Amino acid sequence: MPVPAANPLIDDRDVELLLDDALDLVGLTRLPYFADHDRQTFALVIDSARRLARDVLYPAYRPMDEQPARLADGRVIVHPRLRELWPRMIDLGLTAAPRPHEVGGQQLPMAVASLATVYLMAANLSAYSYVGLTQGAAHLLEAFGDEHLRATYMKRMYAGTWSGTMALTEPQAGSSLSDVATTATPTGDGHYLLSGSKIFISGGDHDLTDNIVHMTLARIAGAPAGIKGVSLFCVPRRRPAGDGGDRLVDNDVAVTGLIHKIGWRGLPSLALAYGERGDCRGWLVGEPHKGISYMFQMMNEARIMVGLNGVATASVAYHESLAYARTRPQGRPVAAKDPTTPQVPIVRHADVRRMLLRQKAIVEGGLCLLVRASRYADVAAHGDVAATRERARLMLDLLTPVAKSFPAERGFEANALALQIHGGYGYSSEYLPEAWLRDQKLNSIHEGTTGIQAMDLLGRRAVAGGGAALAALADEVGRTAARARTAGIDAAHADAVERAVAAVTALTAELGGRGLRGDVDGMMSHATDYLDLFSTVIVAWQWLELAAAARERAARDATWHDVAAAKQAALRYWLATELPRLGHLAALCRSAEDSYVALDPDWL
Amino acid sequence: MPVPAANPLIDDRDVELLLDDALDLVGLTRLPYFADHDRQTFALVIDSARRLARDVLYPAYRPMDEQPARLADGRVIVHPRLRELWPRMIDLGLTAAPRPHEVGGQQLPMAVASLATVYLMAANLSAYSYVGLTQGAAHLLEAFGDEHLRATYMKRMYAGTWSGTMALTEPQAGSSLSDVATTATPTGDGHYLLSGSKIFISGGDHDLTDNIVHMTLARIAGAPAGIKGVSLFCVPRRRPAGDGGDRLVDNDVAVTGLIHKIGWRGLPSLALAYGERGDCRGWLVGEPHKGISYMFQMMNEARIMVGLNGVATASVAYHESLAYARTRPQGRPVAAKDPTTPQVPIVRHADVRRMLLRQKAIVEGGLCLLVRASRYADVAAHGDVAATRERARLMLDLLTPVAKSFPAERGFEANALALQIHGGYGYSSEYLPEAWLRDQKLNSIHEGTTGIQAMDLLGRRAVAGGGAALAALADEVGRTAARARTAGIDAAHADAVERAVAAVTALTAELGGRGLRGDVDGMMSHATDYLDLFSTVIVAWQWLELAAAARERAARDATWHDVAAAKQAALRYWLATELPRLGHLAALCRSAEDSYVALDPDWL
Repeated sequence: MPVPAANPLIDDRDVELLLDDALDLVGLTRLPYFADHDRQTFALVIDSARRLARDVLYPAYRPMDEQPARLADGRVIVHPRLRELWPRMIDLGLTAAPRPHEVGGQQLPMAVASLATVYLMAANLSAYSYVGLTQGAAHLLEAFGDEHLRATYMKRMYAGTWSGTMALTEPQAGSSLSDVATTATPTGDGHYLLSGSKIFISGGDHDLTDNIVHMTLARIAGAPAGIKGVSLFCVPRRRPAGDGGDRLVDNDVAVTGLIHKIGWRGLPSLALAYGERGDCRGWLVGEPHKGISYMFQMMNEARIMVGLNGVATASVAYHESLAYARTRPQGRPVAAKDPTTPQVPIVRHADVRRMLLRQKAIVEGGLCLLVRASRYADVAAHGDVAATRERARLMLDLLTPVAKSFPAERGFEANALALQIHGGYGYSSEYLPEAWLRDQKLNSIHEGTTGIQAMDLLGRRAVAGGGAALAALADEVGRTAARARTAGIDAAHADAVERAVAAVTALTAELGGRGLRGDVDGMMSHATDYLDLFSTVIVAWQWLELAAAARERAARDATWHDVAAAKQAALRYWLATELPRLGHLAALCRSAEDSYVALDPDWL
Repeated sequence: MPVPAANPLIDDRDVELLLDDALDLVGLTRLPYFADHDRQTFALVIDSARRLARDVLYPAYRPMDEQPARLADGRVIVHPRLRELWPRMIDLGLTAAPRPHEVGGQQLPMAVASLATVYLMAANLSAYSYVGLTQGAAHLLEAFGDEHLRATYMKRMYAGTWSGTMALTEPQAGSSLSDVATTATPTGDGHYLLSGSKIFISGGDHDLTDNIVHMTLARIAGAPAGIKGVSLFCVPRRRPAGDGGDRLVDNDVAVTGLIHKIGWRGLPSLALAYGERGDCRGWLVGEPHKGISYMFQMMNEARIMVGLNGVATASVAYHESLAYARTRPQGRPVAAKDPTTPQVPIVRHADVRRMLLRQKAIVEGGLCLLVRASRYADVAAHGDVAATRERARLMLDLLTPVAKSFPAERGFEANALALQIHGGYGYSSEYLPEAWLRDQKLNSIHEGTTGIQAMDLLGRRAVAGGGAALAALADEVGRTAARARTAGIDAAHADAVERAVAAVTALTAELGGRGLRGDVDGMMSHATDYLDLFSTVIVAWQWLELAAAARERAARDATWHDVAAAKQAALRYWLATELPRLGHLAALCRSAEDSYVALDPDWL
């Protein structure tokens, strides 16, 4: 069989289109915070990540999947390849890239950082996650920690000397963080003594850095019950000895179990025990009892990272299946039955092209959404006008549940299609699509399950500000529609997307009204269907933007003709196949259909 | 955490309902072929299988998944537990159960055998598959083999002394069997010498039986190209020495590779080389060049077995997630936010019940369909009136692609939901849902991919006999609708299902007409959407039958109230959530939407 082309991980021209045309990222450099950058520095950052991803991270993916981290003498030993990868990733400077100069950052737009990191994620999700987790943990300290914590921990984490984790989940408190039971007892020495159990702590132990800093939720003795009694602590695996030097001593955080995850196998997930010897010290971050609110201020960022993981994992599999479909001969066209003619590559079969175009629609529609959400985060934080910042914040809040869950749910479907295209070979671990399918499944679970995203979207974000978020959405989509019409995209396509947004707005008003009249259960009973339809419309919007941008570019530069034609095909596919589901799903959300709501579990 | 209840694998009361009420299986005993049976013998067969499944096969599932078969000195060593399981499964007598007395069978209806074997599959898919494969291979010899082959091979295979395989696929000939290249050279001694390579041969080698008989497709030297030159051979791993005794000698079938499948890990999948030493003997089965047609006569049977695998694999996961949801405390009802109250089992959350009811709808709707298809197979073979046999054959042919693909596609979705309900735990191999998810994925690939089922349904079966198949379907569904109305099911439900069948019929006529006018590509371009909508309607029919039957039973026996209530909920769920997709999918099938048909793969 011919050897398929090397996997590009992410389509470079799609990235270029997002950077230059679709989302006007260079326009961000007009904002003072990003003023040191230009198109060239953006391209350099992306290109460095791309090269590291292809040349270094991707070749290590399979070995790391095949040989997960292991426990030895109570400590985790990671795959030896990670020792080479970690410094190379740190050298890219992405850990603190979007952060301000004063903390060692580069003031790079998140949107550009997303375009760079998506290559790393696609190449080797586990390897990149050490960086992503460290970034998130350090950012918490940057935002809420005092000078001591920032100087001791944040600085080293952004520099990649130490790594970080998020230690939220406990065996009895997964989705329900109000049930966190780890305790923190104050001492007179400025620190607390922690005691309790954490579980599913990604990167919770390893031998990659000198120290690991756990951003830990715990309850100060005497705190109120529920989320209003949960505080955030900085709990290092090893703490400074306190003798003025750099010496570190063990901080009584023990590994009590290694979870055998089905994917992300290069990144260990651990059960940890704090304070088994009564000597686990933690330092309060910010004020007491505000841990959950601090975490939630970082949540959009974390959820966008999960969404990007999902896009990346679907993308690498899409490209693998595309290369396979182009080279694997099997069967003949329906009309050409002569068995003495050579077999054709399976990409010639319409149903295989359907599976490819569907993957493309999910992957590139998802990437556009994630970069757009990142851009809103940039403007929300650094916009020059208060109204612009507020609009961007509204949009970011509205899009986050979709950006988190769409790549997880549809990405899983896309990953299954990539396996399917590989036929019997896809069902074996000799080929990689099955590994990416395993990786993808986590994204519908961590950082809030899909069910929780659905309740968050309908119950909070879509009805926020009395409809202000949806009004902003309609306005943003309206701009895209106008652009598409000008670019020469079939006006019917632009109309369809605008009509769909109007339908979502009307539906949301009706459901919100039901809630306001006291029927919250009725409002929320089809929240998952609502998330599905909302996501379908949001992704239709991305495709309108992508098709318009590609057409504009192709008008200037004929070498973009093929890109524009493929974007146009994906837009048509999405509008014909997915958008019409809206009517049925909206009817379901409005209906009194209560089959599972009313279901007595004892009947099952 | 409380320990969930033992997994029942399959819902016993659902099986009882199918046996006694929904599908009138006892009515089959009025046919002479089945006359030795009665309700009690049926129940005995099912109960023996159920007990073996729960007590013996299920406890071996995890060890077999964890420790797959391995190669040693060119031969496959299976998991040691299989040595205990194999004779126990053979003792059940299911290998030849539906076959006639004269070949050692019990003349048991396939429909009843399906209800028995589905427990075995749910308990341990790999273990059962050795039996299923042997049954299929022996049946080929029974149907098409001469006396010598039947006496030497078939008899021992039905008795479980030897096992069997289907050796169709080659590296260059997977879905395209017309490209089979293995050659068979005639000798003057009644046998052929085979030479070639096979791949993905399930159970193609193992140390479980004294001999393995490969039903092998090969091309006789000088045969025409394409499927009309492919013949069927009986090729044992070891052949009788020919000295009149029972001695066996090696038949030159070598193991050249062990495929590392992601599921079904108790059943090795192998690459085999025939005739590396020029001494691989095969015996022609039936006439030359008819191998594909023989295989296709067994295809409905094989596809129904795959469908049953899918139902079984979704069922065991459904029950696991149901038990988990009943015992795992997490969170509180939306209206009860007091954090000092105990957490509730997650089954109390509406979205978890949605995921459970969806699984139930797929699993039990699928099982009803598979048993119904099996019943048609029984009547097609043994009906007392030619017209009845013909009607049953039409229905069996029509339903087979749905029976094969629906449990594979929607079952995969159901398996993913079972994992999702387990949250972070579901993402680990400490829990079993991930293993069943892996198992399930094969069912959309083997015995004809879903894409191939779709083309088979729309291109051949649905348009068969100038609409006779769909007329028969409408008639059968009409009976169910009448029954449902009499039983007191909401008439709107019965009307909706009847209308849906009428819509499918109209759509099929339109698409078939397009094909007859020469636009075969236009007819077939949305074949996969057609399969999706067709399956949705067929499963709606099953739910109408199940709800009606349960209501009838509950009217006679109040202890069935809960069963009836749950069936009613699943019917409502399917009709409200799935059936309305019909309009959109039918429009898509009718449309000229050609995004992927027209897509030039070079654009991607």
